[in-house]
Amino acid sequence: MIQKIIQVVFAGLFSLGALAQKDDSVSIRKIADEVLINGKAYDNLRYLCKKIGPRLSGSLQAQKAVEATAKMLKDAGADTVYLQPCMVPHWTRGEKESGFIKLANGTKYNLDLCALGNSEGTGKKGIIAPVIEVKSFAELEQLGEAVIKGKIVFFNFIMNPAYITTFSAYGQSGLARRAGPSKAAQYGAVGVMVRSLASNPDDFPHTGATQYNDSFPKIPAVAISTNNAEWLSTALKRKMLLTAFIRNTSTMLPDVPSFNVVGEIKGNEFPGQIITVGGHLDSWDLAEGAQDDGAGCVQSIEVLRVLKATGVQPKRTIRAVMFMNEENGGRGAQKYLDLARLNNEKHIFGLESDAGGFTPRGFSLDMKSDAIAKILQWKSLFYEYGVYDFSPGGSGADIGPLKAIGTALAGLKPDSQRYFDVHHAATDVFETVSRRELYLGAVNMAALIYLVDKYGL
Amino acid sequence: MIQKIIQVVFAGLFSLGALAQKDDSVSIRKIADEVLINGKAYDNLRYLCKKIGPRLSGSLQAQKAVEATAKMLKDAGADTVYLQPCMVPHWTRGEKESGFIKLANGTKYNLDLCALGNSEGTGKKGIIAPVIEVKSFAELEQLGEAVIKGKIVFFNFIMNPAYITTFSAYGQSGLARRAGPSKAAQYGAVGVMVRSLASNPDDFPHTGATQYNDSFPKIPAVAISTNNAEWLSTALKRKMLLTAFIRNTSTMLPDVPSFNVVGEIKGNEFPGQIITVGGHLDSWDLAEGAQDDGAGCVQSIEVLRVLKATGVQPKRTIRAVMFMNEENGGRGAQKYLDLARLNNEKHIFGLESDAGGFTPRGFSLDMKSDAIAKILQWKSLFYEYGVYDFSPGGSGADIGPLKAIGTALAGLKPDSQRYFDVHHAATDVFETVSRRELYLGAVNMAALIYLVDKYGL
Repeated sequence: MIQKIIQVVFAGLFSLGALAQKDDSVSIRKIADEVLINGKAYDNLRYLCKKIGPRLSGSLQAQKAVEATAKMLKDAGADTVYLQPCMVPHWTRGEKESGFIKLANGTKYNLDLCALGNSEGTGKKGIIAPVIEVKSFAELEQLGEAVIKGKIVFFNFIMNPAYITTFSAYGQSGLARRAGPSKAAQYGAVGVMVRSLASNPDDFPHTGATQYNDSFPKIPAVAISTNNAEWLSTALKRKMLLTAFIRNTSTMLPDVPSFNVVGEIKGNEFPGQIITVGGHLDSWDLAEGAQDDGAGCVQSIEVLRVLKATGVQPKRTIRAVMFMNEENGGRGAQKYLDLARLNNEKHIFGLESDAGGFTPRGFSLDMKSDAIAKILQWKSLFYEYGVYDFSPGGSGADIGPLKAIGTALAGLKPDSQRYFDVHHAATDVFETVSRRELYLGAVNMAALIYLVDKYGL
Repeated sequence: MIQKIIQVVFAGLFSLGALAQKDDSVSIRKIADEVLINGKAYDNLRYLCKKIGPRLSGSLQAQKAVEATAKMLKDAGADTVYLQPCMVPHWTRGEKESGFIKLANGTKYNLDLCALGNSEGTGKKGIIAPVIEVKSFAELEQLGEAVIKGKIVFFNFIMNPAYITTFSAYGQSGLARRAGPSKAAQYGAVGVMVRSLASNPDDFPHTGATQYNDSFPKIPAVAISTNNAEWLSTALKRKMLLTAFIRNTSTMLPDVPSFNVVGEIKGNEFPGQIITVGGHLDSWDLAEGAQDDGAGCVQSIEVLRVLKATGVQPKRTIRAVMFMNEENGGRGAQKYLDLARLNNEKHIFGLESDAGGFTPRGFSLDMKSDAIAKILQWKSLFYEYGVYDFSPGGSGADIGPLKAIGTALAGLKPDSQRYFDVHHAATDVFETVSRRELYLGAVNMAALIYLVDKYGL
């Protein structure tokens, strides 16, 4: 008899579960139809890229982007739109950089280069010094001050093409850009050239932030194109004695005020529980910041819009946040956490899109195992929209700090194959974004936000 | 005791299975490394696109592509490379097409148009007639001869943006292009304009084959760009009386000889069992045929190359086949089947890549359920390479005829979001192909061929 009861109860639970899944499936289909047919994210992205353009922290364009996305959030149907003031670094590239390699016979070979973000300048006259290639930090350490002193170090860290996910190669080879300049300065180098972090050979320097270690001199640091790096490496292998000239007039100016932009739909049941979806509004100064991270911004705005447009009244408070200063400081992210703490906010979930606007493949989950288990129950709802891969991993640099207050975090994982073709280079423009791919990302983000709002986490 | 024995046997089977999977995983990793690090498919594709260009059946370039891919197959390490002669249709576009819409006040609006493949010409003088829009065949039938006679029918079949897989929309809306001209002729139309089959608004006409029904007059048929179609539809909605002029000098000439190109590695255990991997060598004449289907050709050649390069000695005979005339006749495919029958060949498996060189997402399987079950056992070996989706579905137009002799068939399913941005239009060029995406497709194709060769099907 008891067995019979258990059977009935289980059957009941099962059919309730099945019904809920069916309801959710219908709701998500409505979300998908609305985004794919009436989406606004593509037009919003065009505006950010073509009407505003590069949006480096502290720039006039970054401020224009603050105003433009505040308006987009209002148009999307946010109940409240507000700004969170924060001070940001104000690094400027200065005049167009120049540089060349000089052969022993005096021949010059011009380089496609750009200063790394946060780099010090060389002074107006530039610097000229013998160049030496290193392929690992271990090699640098082995050469030591005896060899390195007075030289320009060329970090030739190739992105490993055998990694299937390009972010794995980026994480590994990116060490040179992030920490190389100070590491070389430690041994007396006078400048640094890093191989651009690009998956494929091209003629574009790819910039990105470097972080100086205050214990060592801040030496100028530039990125050279992958094609330049290949040429230079080959030349050095032939025992050619090469001298490099680099000139950049970059400067770090005093901090200036800027803002995160927040659009909110207040929850009608648990308004104190906050769900954040976001991307970062600042971009590098060399391009339009279409994939990095205009895409994530307009997708986050689209999440709010589609919930409104399909008549979803969230139980919890949904915030779309345009974070400022992800690229060279993370001040907006820090401010968001500080304010959450100050206002004693309860953040139950954060989702970031900052890996390009390409076809979504999955979500990386940075949360406790019971929350992961809950999300995995919803997995099959996403298959239809091309998302299969739910696996543990980091979320995003802007929502990452919320981990300190126990927030469950996730990151959208778009297809990564094309990302480092354009990342931080002049090629990161609107035309590289596929409307349908961008929209499918927004569909899956909205679906996850919808489910977390409905069932909690 | 018997239970114990069964347990032991099962445990043994299980660990044997696990060991085999581990071996396979190592072999596939070797394949992936070789393709991603030393792949030749991208350079081969560049050659096909940039040195040869458009390869319409019967053209000089198609012949050059036959010779070039025969050489590529030899270089890839094929034991034998040979040609299969077949006659192909020889349709020529003639002079650059022209066309415009004339408003009642005499204003002309030029159209971006091109003749559909196989279309008859209008004659040198072109044709001019009132234009009428229809959105379905049902609407056409309802209007009937009374309205249609003497007019140019504008088939405005929009690709449904809500379909997640763009091929679903293509299949549905493509009806107008494939069957529309004869359908309109049945009611006395004098010409046809179809809305281009593009996922997003653009200014390019997308060509593609139409098939005339011999029961009705063969009237000229052109594709107009999606932007033109939107404009025209809006104008017609405003009850504007519009006349269309179209002019094309396309002609179907007598058949000419051409070839399939075959490269083989002979199996050392079951040489009589043939496994085919292929794409089609011909392309439309408007572009480079990079995604359609240069990609599939060079990936198939790469499959042979990587097996050789990683020291795999196949048990069965592996053939990479460049099929001729997929776009407007399918004669190469038919010839391949005819020869298989004539020579009494045993074809155990065929795999086609003809959906673009984008990131692979899965395989569609057209085979008996026991063969599907076998392939599903290997599924997890592909996850690492981004392929999750193994589902029943069609394979490809070139290997499709092999179904008649019981061959198990599969098609590579790349991400479909960008395909119809360039499909059959002048935009289908080498630059739209991502090297890494192309290579990942080849990796997964080679992995599947490797497994089918090793275990049979």
